[in-house]
Amino acid sequence: MSQATDHTYPTRQLCEFLARFTLADVPADVVERTKDLFLDWIASAIAGKDAPAVRKLQEFAAAMGPQQGPAEVLVDRRRTSPYFAALINGASSHVVEQDDVHNGSVLHPAAVVFPAVIAAAQAEGKSGAEVLLASIAGYEAGIRIGEFMGRSHYRVFHTTGTVGTLAAAAAVAKLYGMDAEGINQALGSAGTQAAGLWEFLRDAADSKQLHTAKAAADGLMSAWIARAGFTGAKRILEGPQGMAAGMSSDANPAALTDGLGKRWATAETSFKFFASCRHTHPAADALKDLMLREKISADQIASVTAHVHQGAIDVLGPVTDPKTIHQAKFSMGTVLGLVAVHAHAGLGEFEDHALQDAKVAALRDKVEMELDDEINAAYPRQWIGRVTVRTTDGRTLAGRVDVPKGDPGNTLSRPELEAKALQLGAFRHGASEAEMRAIIARVWALEKQASVNDWLPVAK
Amino acid sequence: MSQATDHTYPTRQLCEFLARFTLADVPADVVERTKDLFLDWIASAIAGKDAPAVRKLQEFAAAMGPQQGPAEVLVDRRRTSPYFAALINGASSHVVEQDDVHNGSVLHPAAVVFPAVIAAAQAEGKSGAEVLLASIAGYEAGIRIGEFMGRSHYRVFHTTGTVGTLAAAAAVAKLYGMDAEGINQALGSAGTQAAGLWEFLRDAADSKQLHTAKAAADGLMSAWIARAGFTGAKRILEGPQGMAAGMSSDANPAALTDGLGKRWATAETSFKFFASCRHTHPAADALKDLMLREKISADQIASVTAHVHQGAIDVLGPVTDPKTIHQAKFSMGTVLGLVAVHAHAGLGEFEDHALQDAKVAALRDKVEMELDDEINAAYPRQWIGRVTVRTTDGRTLAGRVDVPKGDPGNTLSRPELEAKALQLGAFRHGASEAEMRAIIARVWALEKQASVNDWLPVAK
Repeated sequence: MSQATDHTYPTRQLCEFLARFTLADVPADVVERTKDLFLDWIASAIAGKDAPAVRKLQEFAAAMGPQQGPAEVLVDRRRTSPYFAALINGASSHVVEQDDVHNGSVLHPAAVVFPAVIAAAQAEGKSGAEVLLASIAGYEAGIRIGEFMGRSHYRVFHTTGTVGTLAAAAAVAKLYGMDAEGINQALGSAGTQAAGLWEFLRDAADSKQLHTAKAAADGLMSAWIARAGFTGAKRILEGPQGMAAGMSSDANPAALTDGLGKRWATAETSFKFFASCRHTHPAADALKDLMLREKISADQIASVTAHVHQGAIDVLGPVTDPKTIHQAKFSMGTVLGLVAVHAHAGLGEFEDHALQDAKVAALRDKVEMELDDEINAAYPRQWIGRVTVRTTDGRTLAGRVDVPKGDPGNTLSRPELEAKALQLGAFRHGASEAEMRAIIARVWALEKQASVNDWLPVAK
Repeated sequence: MSQATDHTYPTRQLCEFLARFTLADVPADVVERTKDLFLDWIASAIAGKDAPAVRKLQEFAAAMGPQQGPAEVLVDRRRTSPYFAALINGASSHVVEQDDVHNGSVLHPAAVVFPAVIAAAQAEGKSGAEVLLASIAGYEAGIRIGEFMGRSHYRVFHTTGTVGTLAAAAAVAKLYGMDAEGINQALGSAGTQAAGLWEFLRDAADSKQLHTAKAAADGLMSAWIARAGFTGAKRILEGPQGMAAGMSSDANPAALTDGLGKRWATAETSFKFFASCRHTHPAADALKDLMLREKISADQIASVTAHVHQGAIDVLGPVTDPKTIHQAKFSMGTVLGLVAVHAHAGLGEFEDHALQDAKVAALRDKVEMELDDEINAAYPRQWIGRVTVRTTDGRTLAGRVDVPKGDPGNTLSRPELEAKALQLGAFRHGASEAEMRAIIARVWALEKQASVNDWLPVAK
């Protein structure tokens, strides 16, 4: 069979599914969950207002992009071209570390999929139902590609930057109504632009925002140019000089087609309850649970061992002495310190207590991470939280949470999601309470919205 | 020593050199050679006019970028922001495969460095001398980073896409007058965006143009945002989660600082004499030489074995049945066929004879590549050309060229460079002869030009 007509390779089978499915094929609870994810995203993106890294990319967009256009930049209430709107909304989505995460792929789909889809949809006059369908395509593709790339990829590469580019491309190509061939071309151009290294963690540098910004924007670009006829590699994922060949040593092609049309990976996505790196959440949950159960306070803790998977050590290990609030979100000690001292590690606790609080700092220095074989084997399918606390009076206490708060089996209710969205909107005065309540109402009826433009009024 | 004050790592040492050197430190012949490289580049970029892949990126830029600005797009004589000018000029620089190449790094520096530097310089009102200095910084950085990433990188990654992003970033950061810290930050943001996979070769897809386009544009972006204060990883190259950790198995940190201030790698760059992938050139030279010496014609050739290095097999091996002129530039058989039948494989020969000429096709099928230990060991420092020809009357003839035409030891003279530039300008009517002659005169006095704007008049 010639390569030109061989449609049996995994990337192509994924594209065939993505081109084919309609909203009628998606179970109603998955559509509802996608609306939950959308609300969680838009509130996160609004909360990125005034973050320095986002500000600098806004300056770049002002210098390099058009001063007007069809697409909305949430943090400054201006309009520009879809490319730059995706760039800025992508950057702002991830900076407060409150956006969603899919466990098995260790991908943050919202931060890359929704900024690209909304920017493209606003330019094309698409409806809420079309946005939901396209976004589900982006989640289904991105999650499977993340699982395909494997754990070896995540050790060096920020999957949300690399795989996120393809997730955004798949979503926008679906929004454009492209066929399997077109989606395949879009993935080809996206995969050959896929980038993002973890090295920035060591310097607390701004790259994480650049990764989501560029994944969203370059994914949108890939779909746009594919629609114009610009071609890319067909086997960009599994080919001998494709993404897996270059950036993975444990790629699993079967993951690309896993349960297509039966397994809705979108609904497996977790919400963040704590405002920190997801790798800190299982242990934070376990510690919180233990302290409530045993009725101990932070003063009574002599040491905490967080039993973790290898990925947590890879990402959090370099952060021993956090200098910024953003870096503190990657410090296991800080997160457990906030939970122990202030009972929560939300946006407010990070702002007020992550860096200057002596009690939190004291507890931070009592925390160590230890690789745990059982937890490591279960990861990334299951993110088990386990801590061992030694008390000042000599007791050894064990805490464990099998399904951390925010996971599908322990998800946030709509009232909890609304409360979180209101907090995110208020965080940097990104949106007034009335504006956030209007957004919430619109999202709960997203499938009925004829337009997805103008979530916030244009700045005067 | 804390990481924050440790400036002894190789990336930093490279940055210290890049920040420090002035045009007075550069030997006069290196400056003159840089002008040769600049002329060869601008003519290549003009020759990319009307190439379909470039056209589609022009459409993207028209949709997403501003309709006016300070930076010149050579192929359409319009002006836009530096980001989009770098994108389009980067795309058009490489499409006719006539731009320069550095052997040791297997990097095409011109296609990524000059588009970024010129776009940034036009926006900032920089002079020709400043452009030369910045471009030399881009070449010196890019070549060393390419050598650092090693041969393992090039097997899967298109070094001009990946490393090219850092070369462009270093050049623009130097143009901006940034210090070592700033250049380091720019490289951090560039390295975490570095991408480009060879997989597209198998499908004759358009990605090669996307790679140079994005390397130039994203490199410029990296320097721009670094100047605005956006931070990146310091040890982006050699760090435990940096580029080498993710994308190389034979990285050599010593290459990053090799001969800084003494070895001027810029002047090691080769010009292309044939309009094809550089990996075909040594064998093409050897065949041409053999046929002249032995006075044989294409009809007398029964078979040709091209003795090559592994990189040639990796890049050219997938191309067995070229379907487009661009793909034919990666077919060893086609290139040797053109040389045998038409005595040259220039732009005109590719246009007229690469795909439809029965004699060329017949010879193409008589060519095979064979890995040669001596040639492979010398590569990439030296690109030796060796062919074995079996004639129809039963003779076995050997051809060999140690320094292929265009290499520093066998370079193009200024009259040859001018003739090549005039051909490139005429190729798609990208510039009139009078316009090309004006460009040539301006380039030969580049160090005296107060402005680098308006190489071609604005379209009416």
